[in-house]
Amino acid sequence: MAEKVLIIGAVALGPKVACRLRRINPDVDITVIDRDSLISYGGCGIPYYVGGDVAELEGLYSTIAHAKRDVPFFKNVKGFNVLTRVEALEIKRAAKKVVVRYLDEGRDGELEYDKLVIATGATPMRPPFPGSDLPKVYVVSNLHHASAIKTAISNGEVERAVVIGAGAIGIEMAEALTDLWGVETTIVEMAEQVLPQALGKDMARMVEKKLEDHGVKLLLSQKVMKINGNMKNGAESVEIVDQSGKFPVTTLPCDMVILAAGVRPNSELAAAAGLAIGRNRGILVNKCMQTTDPNIYAGGDCAEFTNLVSGMDCVMPLGSLANRQGRIIATNINGGNEQFTGSVGSFCIKVFDMGVAKAGLTVNQAKSAGFDPVYSVVAQSDRAHFFPDADFMFMKLIADRKTRTVLGVEAAGPQGDAVKARVDAVAPLLKFGVDVSEICNLEVSYSPPYASAMDVVNNVGNALDNTLNGNLRSIDTFEFLELLKKGNIKVLDVRSSVQGAPFVEKYPKQWINVPQDELRSRFNEIELIVKNLPSDSPLYLMCGTGPRSYETQAFLNGKGLTNTKNVQGGYGMILAIHPPLV
Amino acid sequence: MAEKVLIIGAVALGPKVACRLRRINPDVDITVIDRDSLISYGGCGIPYYVGGDVAELEGLYSTIAHAKRDVPFFKNVKGFNVLTRVEALEIKRAAKKVVVRYLDEGRDGELEYDKLVIATGATPMRPPFPGSDLPKVYVVSNLHHASAIKTAISNGEVERAVVIGAGAIGIEMAEALTDLWGVETTIVEMAEQVLPQALGKDMARMVEKKLEDHGVKLLLSQKVMKINGNMKNGAESVEIVDQSGKFPVTTLPCDMVILAAGVRPNSELAAAAGLAIGRNRGILVNKCMQTTDPNIYAGGDCAEFTNLVSGMDCVMPLGSLANRQGRIIATNINGGNEQFTGSVGSFCIKVFDMGVAKAGLTVNQAKSAGFDPVYSVVAQSDRAHFFPDADFMFMKLIADRKTRTVLGVEAAGPQGDAVKARVDAVAPLLKFGVDVSEICNLEVSYSPPYASAMDVVNNVGNALDNTLNGNLRSIDTFEFLELLKKGNIKVLDVRSSVQGAPFVEKYPKQWINVPQDELRSRFNEIELIVKNLPSDSPLYLMCGTGPRSYETQAFLNGKGLTNTKNVQGGYGMILAIHPPLV
Repeated sequence: MAEKVLIIGAVALGPKVACRLRRINPDVDITVIDRDSLISYGGCGIPYYVGGDVAELEGLYSTIAHAKRDVPFFKNVKGFNVLTRVEALEIKRAAKKVVVRYLDEGRDGELEYDKLVIATGATPMRPPFPGSDLPKVYVVSNLHHASAIKTAISNGEVERAVVIGAGAIGIEMAEALTDLWGVETTIVEMAEQVLPQALGKDMARMVEKKLEDHGVKLLLSQKVMKINGNMKNGAESVEIVDQSGKFPVTTLPCDMVILAAGVRPNSELAAAAGLAIGRNRGILVNKCMQTTDPNIYAGGDCAEFTNLVSGMDCVMPLGSLANRQGRIIATNINGGNEQFTGSVGSFCIKVFDMGVAKAGLTVNQAKSAGFDPVYSVVAQSDRAHFFPDADFMFMKLIADRKTRTVLGVEAAGPQGDAVKARVDAVAPLLKFGVDVSEICNLEVSYSPPYASAMDVVNNVGNALDNTLNGNLRSIDTFEFLELLKKGNIKVLDVRSSVQGAPFVEKYPKQWINVPQDELRSRFNEIELIVKNLPSDSPLYLMCGTGPRSYETQAFLNGKGLTNTKNVQGGYGMILAIHPPLV
Repeated sequence: MAEKVLIIGAVALGPKVACRLRRINPDVDITVIDRDSLISYGGCGIPYYVGGDVAELEGLYSTIAHAKRDVPFFKNVKGFNVLTRVEALEIKRAAKKVVVRYLDEGRDGELEYDKLVIATGATPMRPPFPGSDLPKVYVVSNLHHASAIKTAISNGEVERAVVIGAGAIGIEMAEALTDLWGVETTIVEMAEQVLPQALGKDMARMVEKKLEDHGVKLLLSQKVMKINGNMKNGAESVEIVDQSGKFPVTTLPCDMVILAAGVRPNSELAAAAGLAIGRNRGILVNKCMQTTDPNIYAGGDCAEFTNLVSGMDCVMPLGSLANRQGRIIATNINGGNEQFTGSVGSFCIKVFDMGVAKAGLTVNQAKSAGFDPVYSVVAQSDRAHFFPDADFMFMKLIADRKTRTVLGVEAAGPQGDAVKARVDAVAPLLKFGVDVSEICNLEVSYSPPYASAMDVVNNVGNALDNTLNGNLRSIDTFEFLELLKKGNIKVLDVRSSVQGAPFVEKYPKQWINVPQDELRSRFNEIELIVKNLPSDSPLYLMCGTGPRSYETQAFLNGKGLTNTKNVQGGYGMILAIHPPLV
């Protein structure tokens, strides 16, 4: 039985379904249509094309063997037909037909199917402020805009750019504009932090610092009111207003605007055909990736799926998910029974010379999902500390207080692959709802050039285990910095006197330095300080990265001085998110 | 109740137990004894000290804050006593005492305990050939030998070295001797391959090639007969004989011998006290790390535990395991109930500029454990192939044929952290006995600088899934190379004509080149070749790394030509384990 399979969309999921289906079924009739002329490209590579890592646009739609993934390629090599510049207008489910428009010929027609795959992707949101459709306002979603952006920059037409949105694409584009081209770039973001969907405040702050250190101007909690300009000159400036409303409107002159304010699933076609749409506007599918019509599959950026940690439906525009889902759809169209059960939200990004990764829920997302999140933060070298190219990695682990179930993990550091290694090792466990002790005992591979004997990922588990057991009482670094600014606190710094001295000098009333190896001999001194503290004011314990202050807390506990709090991640964490204190 | 806890051994597990125990219990009386004077060192760092990555010996027993981990450190900072140069002679279980010898004072005494921890580690094996106790024959197990090795080399006394054993330590030492010091180094190994406990033949061959490329001479399947020399001059040469017995004895002149022929758990003390010892000579413990005497715990290199994939008992001398077990022992001594359920054998090693990692069982280990192993091998770039610093990674996945349960994973590539990321992402799943489809859908984080949209780890799962489903029929690369050498086979190379031409020229009778995009138009040509092949002689399909030849196989299947086999990993795999074919 040679069925007819029609696939709408030829970027990521569409071609994947078609290629896999052809490999496992030589007879099925496969047609892929796309309204664009350029197809099967790595959209996530666009910032790297603009930033010069990928020299030619063709690099984004070529195979590793340098074959262009175009219509003849799919015909001759992959064995199926792709019709470009053909737009799907309507799905006639009863008749199993799709009404299409041949854009170049200006005529309409119908294509039949036995099985239909909707791979229509997502469209960048154009927020409803005036001017978002002016020339020189670009989105980062297709190769035409990518090409136009790079052409404008390389022609020297862009001195100043405004990026609207500090999600992954906004940040990657800001890096591309700044790093290679030296464009003076400002990111405007509505939320209080960058990457609000991906990271907690501390890791986000590290990203913000990294952007600022590389000359990207960051305006958070700011709302765009309008883009000024005209059809002839294009965008000329962006007007923004502080979310608090306290400050007057600011105008940011610019030669280019990048709209990176998120994407919206292209589900209109499915909705019009009566298929169920989810609360995130994505097409609803079952675990076999079938829509509410069993002859119609959907996947990739236009479909919803379950977040396996929160249990809630979500959309996540990622080429990796699209590829994995595409393989499953092909198998199932061919009579198989593969399932896509959902996602734990694994994510990573390069921000200049820093890698950041996460999986699962942030603290805020965990709260929204009804959990009572507790977290640990550690700063530790990403390989044996005696190894010469060891770098600091920051890692955060989040669990539910009552059940001790691990909910999320975040990490950042200069060695992106090493950061990814830790997060990807935790991610596969998240859907099993494991106890924190699984992370304490996570069996990551060990050798001094690549890991510590007690690795950072085990230690972030240990720190959380200690917190849940009541052995470790911490204060959030931001909270600590606020209190220090207000002034009325006492800090016991257990680093060496050389390290502690400048702090004691700068904060004579707040800062006490007793090196850890003198704690026992100078205990009376510490006891006196603690006993003079008001009961609601703990002694804050500080060291380089956290372990020594934790050990100090344990020591003081043993002496009956339990009114202490450990500054998680120590001064290393402060330096990562804040200007130096001295 | 302040109990007395006595810990025998102060290298890895011992200090970990003591430190953790002190943190969670300020009152318990903790004493650690060690027969050596240097304690709490990173033994796994010795090759990096010899190789110059770690400048000073002190680096191996210092904290990240540059504190020396010596007796005063443990007293003043960690809050417990360490007695060095004190050897445990006998455990009197009924009396709960340990008879000890104060080595420097030459007297014996007794130490009491309520709970005892045996952390006696392992001793390098000195194989029973003559000369293994000569001067200039070193083991890599303590800092005294490490220091002596480095002193001899830096004094220019070592032009030629022989390393006996091609396990991790032998390889790391060979790299250290060659890379920094230019010592002419030969590794002698009894097995047919390096790292026989860790890797399958293909990945091992990559390590061998890397060693040879960096000037290390490798003599496999060779048995050491004796070390020649005398007490005055020390070792002068090593006599070896081919395992086949076909060749005469070879003599390798040398100025230094490194014995790296494995280690043996130090379980004699425990055995003499009547504690149960396992079949690997390690001390048997339950999941709470208690020996057969519930008041005596054991862990680290001297204890056995379960391999969670094979179900068999094993020993694995690794600082990471010792640290994690140490934490559990401390918790349990303090009345907790933490469990160490076993290990999946995660392992990684740096071999010059290549990283190698594995978890679970090799094909041979899987066979020994009663499985019917099937495996896939893929070669793929370790980040988006369009990203400029993408490198090739080789990855192997092993599963049981009938149950499809994932049994093991191996990977190698120039970016060690990226290699580790893939293996560590699979490792946590191994103990759950997951289906191969879990690897196809493994949710590793994705961004072009760090991964492919269909990442190498997913693709190695896909290839294995295709193999198990019968969609992919492969030949092992070594087997293919053997057949090619014998000559009587046909290879269809679907790479470009530029790439294929030299092969056709060199192998005119064996090699046919039809670029993949011409397969359909030149099908008749291929059909004729296949139909003329004897039924027991398949057409071997070859491309750059495997995917195009797999696709070709699918295409030919569809045309009824099913007598084909795919060369897994393609020519890329051949180049990684064999000299170039042309």
